[in-house]
Order: sequence, then C-alpha cells, then structure tokens
Amino acid sequence: MQHIISMKNDIITLGHGSGAALTRQLISEVFAGKFKLAELNDAACIDNHITVTTDAYVVNPLFFPGGDIGKLSITGTVNDLSMNGSVPAYIVASFILEEGFSIEKLKLIADSMQKTAEEAGVKIIAGDTKVVEKGKCDGVYITTTGIGFLPDGVNLAAKNISEGDKIIVNGSLGDHTVAIINARQNLGLDPAPESDCAPLREVIEILLNTTKFKFARDATRGGVATILNEIYEDTGLGMIIEETSLPIKDSTTALCGLLGLDPLYMANEGKLVAIISEPNNDMLSRLKAHKYGKDSAIIGKVTKEVKGVYLRTALGSLRPLLMLASDPLPRIC
Amino acid sequence: MQHIISMKNDIITLGHGSGAALTRQLISEVFAGKFKLAELNDAACIDNHITVTTDAYVVNPLFFPGGDIGKLSITGTVNDLSMNGSVPAYIVASFILEEGFSIEKLKLIADSMQKTAEEAGVKIIAGDTKVVEKGKCDGVYITTTGIGFLPDGVNLAAKNISEGDKIIVNGSLGDHTVAIINARQNLGLDPAPESDCAPLREVIEILLNTTKFKFARDATRGGVATILNEIYEDTGLGMIIEETSLPIKDSTTALCGLLGLDPLYMANEGKLVAIISEPNNDMLSRLKAHKYGKDSAIIGKVTKEVKGVYLRTALGSLRPLLMLASDPLPRIC
Repeated sequence: MQHIISMKNDIITLGHGSGAALTRQLISEVFAGKFKLAELNDAACIDNHITVTTDAYVVNPLFFPGGDIGKLSITGTVNDLSMNGSVPAYIVASFILEEGFSIEKLKLIADSMQKTAEEAGVKIIAGDTKVVEKGKCDGVYITTTGIGFLPDGVNLAAKNISEGDKIIVNGSLGDHTVAIINARQNLGLDPAPESDCAPLREVIEILLNTTKFKFARDATRGGVATILNEIYEDTGLGMIIEETSLPIKDSTTALCGLLGLDPLYMANEGKLVAIISEPNNDMLSRLKAHKYGKDSAIIGKVTKEVKGVYLRTALGSLRPLLMLASDPLPRIC
Repeated sequence: MQHIISMKNDIITLGHGSGAALTRQLISEVFAGKFKLAELNDAACIDNHITVTTDAYVVNPLFFPGGDIGKLSITGTVNDLSMNGSVPAYIVASFILEEGFSIEKLKLIADSMQKTAEEAGVKIIAGDTKVVEKGKCDGVYITTTGIGFLPDGVNLAAKNISEGDKIIVNGSLGDHTVAIINARQNLGLDPAPESDCAPLREVIEILLNTTKFKFARDATRGGVATILNEIYEDTGLGMIIEETSLPIKDSTTALCGLLGLDPLYMANEGKLVAIISEPNNDMLSRLKAHKYGKDSAIIGKVTKEVKGVYLRTALGSLRPLLMLASDPLPRIC
C-alpha cells in the first residue's frame, strides 16, 4: 500500500466502500491475508481459463436516468469479467429485500436484468432471495457473480505495461456519477443527465484485435484517476494525462465546478481505461463507430518523466493526481 | 406450484424470505420466467460439469453458539454445491457493511470464513465490499457464490426417486434454529444449544459409495418437511416418515413444545435429507462414524400408500405435513 490511513476508531466508515485507498486498505488488512487472495483484482482466474467475479450493488436511488440497480448489477459484473479479456457467459444473482418493498418494482428490476443480460450475451442461471425487516436494508441490494471464459492466448495484465504506452478511454467521463447526483439530490437538471452504464465486451473485442493491447480496467468507483494510481502502485510506472484530451461533457464540467467535484475521480459504469502501445487510427475509428465508444480518446501516456500520476493542465503545468483516501459519494453503485 | 397464496398488497413480506411456499412463489412469479431458469434448484449446472450456487446470508445475530455469519456463509454454499454430488472448489464473497460496524468483528468473521473454507476444502478467491449508511443494513450481510465440479457419472436428481426408497437424515433436526432462537431472544438455555452448521461434502462422499443413492438436499430454511414437500411437488410420489424414528434432541423437543414450533419445519445447517433405495447397515455405520453423521437415521419411505407427505405419529395415526406458506422465524440464515 502506498497510502496508509489510520482506521479511525476501528469502525467501518462510508469511505471504506468508496473504491479508493480506504477500500484497498480494508481489503488488504482484513481479507487479503486471511483469504490468501492472489491479487486484489476484481476478477479471479481459475485454471487460467475460467474467470469469476462478484459484486454487491447498493446504488441509491434504485432507478435513475440511463439505468437502474438491475441493469447495473449485470453491466458491472460482465465488465469485470471482460477486463481481462474473458467472454462473459453466466450470472448468478442474490437479492436482499426489505420487508415492504414493492413487488412491482422488483419485477421491473428483474426485467432490466434480463434485458441487459441478453444484450451482454450472458445467461442468468441461478439465484437466492432473502428478506430482512423494514429498516434493515434500503429496498433491495443485489449481488451478482459472473463466470466467463478466457480465450487461449489472451493475456491482459498491468505487468505488460511499459514506457511509452498510450492511455485510452472509450468516452466521456463522470456520466454515471452525475446522473446519480442529479437523481438523488433532485437537482432537476434538464435534460436529466444519463448514466453511461453499459456492457463493454464488444469494446474489448475491438481492442483485442489490436496486437498491442496490454491492459484494461473499467473506471467505476474512484474513476480514471484511481485506476491510474493502482497501475502506478502495481508497476511503478509514471503517467501523464492531458487535460485538453479528456472527453468530458460540458454539463459535467459545469456541475463539477458548482459542486467542487473532479470528473477524473467520478464513477463511470460504461467506461474503461485501456493501455495500448501503439494505437492507430484504424482502431480509433472502429472504437468511435461503436455505440459505446463514440467519444473514445487517447488521453495520455506512460512515461518515466514523472513518478506518480499527473495531469498536464490546459496551461501546461503538471498537477499530481493522488490516490484519494475516500470518495465523497457513497452508494454510487 | 401446489399452493397459490395471494401476494398481499403486492409488497415483500418476511415470509417471502422464509424458504417455504411464499419464497417459491416469489421466485416462480418474479424471477424464474424472466431469467428462464431451468429449475428452481439451489445450484445450477454449466455444461454438465461445473456447478454454481449463490446465497445471501443475513442471519441475526451475527455470532451464535456453534457458528457465526462467516462460518454459515461457507457451509451453506458448499452444502448447496455438494447436494448434486459436486466437489466444492472455489468461493467468491461479497460484503455489504453498515457504517459504524466494528472492524474487529469483521476480522473475526473473515477468520471464521477462512477456517471453514479450509475444512471444506474450498479456496476463497475473490470478493467485493460495499458500505451503506447506518440504519441501512444490520452490521454485515454476506453473499457467497460457490463453484464446484461434478464428477463424471454422478447423477443425483429427484426424478431418480421411486416407490419403496428410504428417507435418511444425518442427525438431529432443528439444532440451528434452536441455537438462533436462544441467542436472539436471550432465553439463557444452559447449556446453550449449538448450531449444527457444518460442511457436508464428506457425508455425501459416504453416500456416494452406495450405488443406490438417488437424491440429497440440505434441510435449511423450511426444514425437512419443506424438502419432502418439494420432492412431492416435483415427483408426485407420496412419503411417510415415522415420528419414533426422528432424531430430535430432548432439549429441542422441550423448547418446541413451549414455543409451539415443529422441528420438522425448522432450519438445519448441517443436515441433509437423502433418498436411497436400499440403505444397508454398513453404510449406516460409516455415516454414524463420521462427526457430522453420528445420529443418522432412516426416518421414512417413499410410498404410493399416500398422496402427499405424512407423519406416522407414535400412536400410529397419519398426520399430513403440508407445505407452509411461510416460516415464523425470519433471518435464520
């Protein structure tokens, strides 16, 4: 761990769920040693062939423009499978329901899961349902576990990354968080910003056709800046990203300015960070032609010029992008 | 479905989580059709070789004599894998934590998971952690997903069952529920009754050495009576169990008498119902020699004499054991 934060009063705080440094510390101190986890990655590989990943979804609100907890519970999990190059195949889902929750809403959520599963090419094959008393949950929490198959010869990993590689994202940053903030706080933005939540297997397939494709990670909790810091912690390789190259919607920039938020740290649910040694125009065109890659951009590079992760601002100065201890927005996914 | 209960006010009730008829109805009406689930079983089989199962654990209290939510989250899931004859291999775990929960307790739970995983021969390979605000959870909820491998030639299924088969359990019934009631209600029973939660793969292995072994199911939520009713619904085969053959501890009988509960409907976490055509003394001796099979007993038989599931009482009369709509005790696992 690069950053050690003292665990205040030895109790769980919302920051432990933020996906930033506190989450990594909790996993590392409480779970990783005991469970003998090989890596702190989102997905584990069995026999170099079967990939498994699990995620709990506690997003608030349950329904938001561009998605709902059901859609998110499929896209988030298939994306975790996709990031090492695996083909997502199966999902199992477990539901914790609050006494009094509307069965009509539950049906909408199940519908949304099934539709998204069909788009993502996965089958939902088993599930479990538990009910807790009113006030011991918040409507519904869903945990999905995904199983995928890693094709022979695919080997995406941070250790492949080297000096000079380029950093790519497949579109505008921060959209999911902006959609959640607007829906949760009833800000009434018009048009209502939509979450980007989407299954990314097809985007990965485009990248896999590039022989120089080395690494990908979906930029969820903690955003792009956290992913890049994790790569730096794992590899020791510095990175500079260019402010002028970042695909960020004007409405996102405006809202972030008002609320003091940074889109680089905000969760996306349909965006990935890819590291590629020599991206070419052909690949970029194919990415941009895909509905989930329209605003793809090369945003920076891996370089020995710096130690750590830096943003080159529009004015040309270098601003460090540190690993945050926590994220100010709980329950974003 | 044998029993159709109207969904009162179209909201989720605690009964929907009880594992009895209401749970089956919820799964059947909300999930099974949409997700195109092949069966309503606890585990799904991929390619006739890989078995996958998922379960959420919301037990209250988190720690109880004989176990805790961590131990339960491993035994419950490996047992679901074991019941079709699969060898449990891997576990992934997702945690929903309440803001303010003690990290010390979380470490105890993780310890317990790892110890139980070692006993059960499974590796915990990945996980996820989310945190929700105080009052939106009850300390910690855990979802575990298990992956196991089904050996060639093993084929345990309700459709194998036929007239004359014997019904076996591997020990005393109701122990888990009694332990939870005593701990939750501070009844102060002395000695405190212990949960039976235990991994049952080795018990299944003993049974698999019997060529006439046809079917097994762990008797968790809803207890033995619910399992037998599910078999009846699936096969149309009647069953009679003998009151005088039931292994039930005197302390359980006494507490159930006081509280008006029936051990046949109470959850076990280390007991299974097995259907075997010709159990012999050799197999029963081997079961009884195992630490999780000491009080194994043949409790009844499959028979065309009756339609449905019946208990032959000590007095010789036949009492119907109906499928209950719900279970009076929420959050038993």
